[in-house]
Amino acid sequence: MSACITLLTDFGTEDTYVGVMKGVIASLCADATVIDLTHEVPPQDIATGAFLLDASVDYFPEGTIHVAVVDPGVGTSRKPVALRTSRAFFVGPDNGLFTLVLQRQKLLQAVCLDNPQYHLPNPSATFHGRDLFAPVAAHLARGVPLEELGTPLTRLQRLPLPRIRVDWLGIRATVVHIDRFGNVITNLTRADYEAWRVRWDVKEPAVEVVSGTDLLPICRTYGEVPRGQALALFGSSQRLEVAINGGNAAQVFHLQRGETIRILRSESTPPPRVQRKLNLG
Amino acid sequence: MSACITLLTDFGTEDTYVGVMKGVIASLCADATVIDLTHEVPPQDIATGAFLLDASVDYFPEGTIHVAVVDPGVGTSRKPVALRTSRAFFVGPDNGLFTLVLQRQKLLQAVCLDNPQYHLPNPSATFHGRDLFAPVAAHLARGVPLEELGTPLTRLQRLPLPRIRVDWLGIRATVVHIDRFGNVITNLTRADYEAWRVRWDVKEPAVEVVSGTDLLPICRTYGEVPRGQALALFGSSQRLEVAINGGNAAQVFHLQRGETIRILRSESTPPPRVQRKLNLG
Amino acid sequence: MSACITLLTDFGTEDTYVGVMKGVIASLCADATVIDLTHEVPPQDIATGAFLLDASVDYFPEGTIHVAVVDPGVGTSRKPVALRTSRAFFVGPDNGLFTLVLQRQKLLQAVCLDNPQYHLPNPSATFHGRDLFAPVAAHLARGVPLEELGTPLTRLQRLPLPRIRVDWLGIRATVVHIDRFGNVITNLTRADYEAWRVRWDVKEPAVEVVSGTDLLPICRTYGEVPRGQALALFGSSQRLEVAINGGNAAQVFHLQRGETIRILRSESTPPPRVQRKLNLG
Repeated sequence: MSACITLLTDFGTEDTYVGVMKGVIASLCADATVIDLTHEVPPQDIATGAFLLDASVDYFPEGTIHVAVVDPGVGTSRKPVALRTSRAFFVGPDNGLFTLVLQRQKLLQAVCLDNPQYHLPNPSATFHGRDLFAPVAAHLARGVPLEELGTPLTRLQRLPLPRIRVDWLGIRATVVHIDRFGNVITNLTRADYEAWRVRWDVKEPAVEVVSGTDLLPICRTYGEVPRGQALALFGSSQRLEVAINGGNAAQVFHLQRGETIRILRSESTPPPRVQRKLNLG
Repeated sequence: MSACITLLTDFGTEDTYVGVMKGVIASLCADATVIDLTHEVPPQDIATGAFLLDASVDYFPEGTIHVAVVDPGVGTSRKPVALRTSRAFFVGPDNGLFTLVLQRQKLLQAVCLDNPQYHLPNPSATFHGRDLFAPVAAHLARGVPLEELGTPLTRLQRLPLPRIRVDWLGIRATVVHIDRFGNVITNLTRADYEAWRVRWDVKEPAVEVVSGTDLLPICRTYGEVPRGQALALFGSSQRLEVAINGGNAAQVFHLQRGETIRILRSESTPPPRVQRKLNLG
Repeated sequence: MSACITLLTDFGTEDTYVGVMKGVIASLCADATVIDLTHEVPPQDIATGAFLLDASVDYFPEGTIHVAVVDPGVGTSRKPVALRTSRAFFVGPDNGLFTLVLQRQKLLQAVCLDNPQYHLPNPSATFHGRDLFAPVAAHLARGVPLEELGTPLTRLQRLPLPRIRVDWLGIRATVVHIDRFGNVITNLTRADYEAWRVRWDVKEPAVEVVSGTDLLPICRTYGEVPRGQALALFGSSQRLEVAINGGNAAQVFHLQRGETIRILRSESTPPPRVQRKLNLG
């Protein structure tokens, strides 16, 4: 069976940077299946890269080689690395991109990519995606053992991550991503939410997006509220998100990554209801 | 020979939704060839999805599995379906996406995707692309018979479609799509046009885009008029389109989907010629 | 081993033009590996297409078939062509798209694609990407010899190319591309630069982007200057580029393709230093 390689970068698709990486892979391992995760990570936004990678990797075959390149420090002292976890391989810069994945997948082995035998000859200092990461991924796909690729590493960079905070009113979660539809995705997982409901005996939770506006119900799907109405739900990544049925919640609520959303224990601690004044176009 | 699967969605490429669907397919059917039709259907715009799908499917191998997901009703009572036609398979929501294709391809079999054995375990209510449609496509690619996937269906949702209207002046056609180059594509097919010419004995037809402006000639290719000049032609989808050689017709004529364009039987019913006053940048 | 086909177009990804080309290829040569270089060449911008193609082809396997379609003259007298060079095949319109590649790769054979046996039946006059170039690429991938595809050609169209100019002050280079990160790429290759340094005994060269502003150092990688600072370096395409560490040089310096950048023999011919007045956000 041929190996599966995924690519996640901030390279965009206007240039041929991604195509060139695939050319390098095809030159070294012609029968690998190469799948784009996305190349539209905002330039140099490591946190978004880490989020999108984590939301995706569970859906790939075991042993998939995930190449992630959001790499503002390319050519500096930040290390190029390859990792093996309980489920997959990861290749990219050691700058925190793998932080979220490594919260869920056990890290088995990590190396610094310092064996030039597995790089392109005369690698540039500015495009390790092409000169280091793509060839390393292709060699892994061909079965080269991880330890061949470089020196073992024991510590990896980790991103600081926002945590949920719980008090007697409820949970404060942080917006970690806004998707193409304007759905506002938080760091509250369904597992943490269910544990909180049990512990605090929560019957009728509700979501406060903007202080002083209508509380939102927690639904199962978008269509449970009329078109144009806002709701909260556990989305496809099993994290709480705020959405508008047929609309763009991020625009309507003026929400950005990093902002706080409250999940209240009860509707009976209600702020005044003024949702109708928002333009729910 | 490995099966061919196409994907058409409104998911965009900023997120990893499409990549994840490909991961699911690779997990279940590693040797399928997966081809993107487009993921830039305007969010929830079923009519554009139907148009783009119809314009594309003839160019794929027989037996190709076309997955189309423009799905505002995901998780509600709209049915997830799979179809077999005289040429191909189609997988997606039953919301009219397949209306245009089914005008041209004979429907042989349709099922509601209610057999959970062919879905991902614990499917979400918000991402059937990943949890139902991708695995179903992969199973079809592996040779699972359509009838295994669910209960037979006899009726499918259809979109209301604009029709051409003919009167003594000529044809009124409707704009159904505007492409990346600003070419304005109508619902008038070459076949309907040729039949009309014979029936009305039309010698010198001309196209009126905006009432009171120059009539446009019907050409064979863009280069038949000087750069910056407007023309009409039967484009690559065999539908009448309005274009500007080297320019953007939709912008210049302020045209949008749904607007009417007239094909006149003769230039001798001419409105005043004022095309030069338009900014044909 | 299956053949590798690349696609570079100005078709964008909102429509299904590219997907349809892949359908045609899959219909004729199911096991070809098809790789997108980019489809975001600005509409009808042959020079950018030529630059991006040239920057990419060295990274693909020998014998790769590169299909390039930026084709404002489609359907007119411009010839559809296929070429064989010392390294690869090229398929597309004869309008200068291959100019840069042919400066570096020896042209061995060229044909005009006038054998309709290798086209789709009833080809359109507006979409040769689908009706001529994709099927020709697939037939080449299947091993059809180039001479079968049409009549030999001895002359090809070439684009006029900006040249570097050298005087006693230094080199004047021309901006040939701006990438997604705002890096400003010039036509000065590392080889020409090194030859110039030797010939003029240049010790401390410096780059003047905008007359009267700070000279920039020539670095090895972005991280050699503090975040927000501008620099020059030989980028991944081995051409001199102007960049801002963590920023967008094209925006900050208001640079566009075609503008001139000077490489001075010495910092001691300095214009006044006012870089701090620029908004290096």
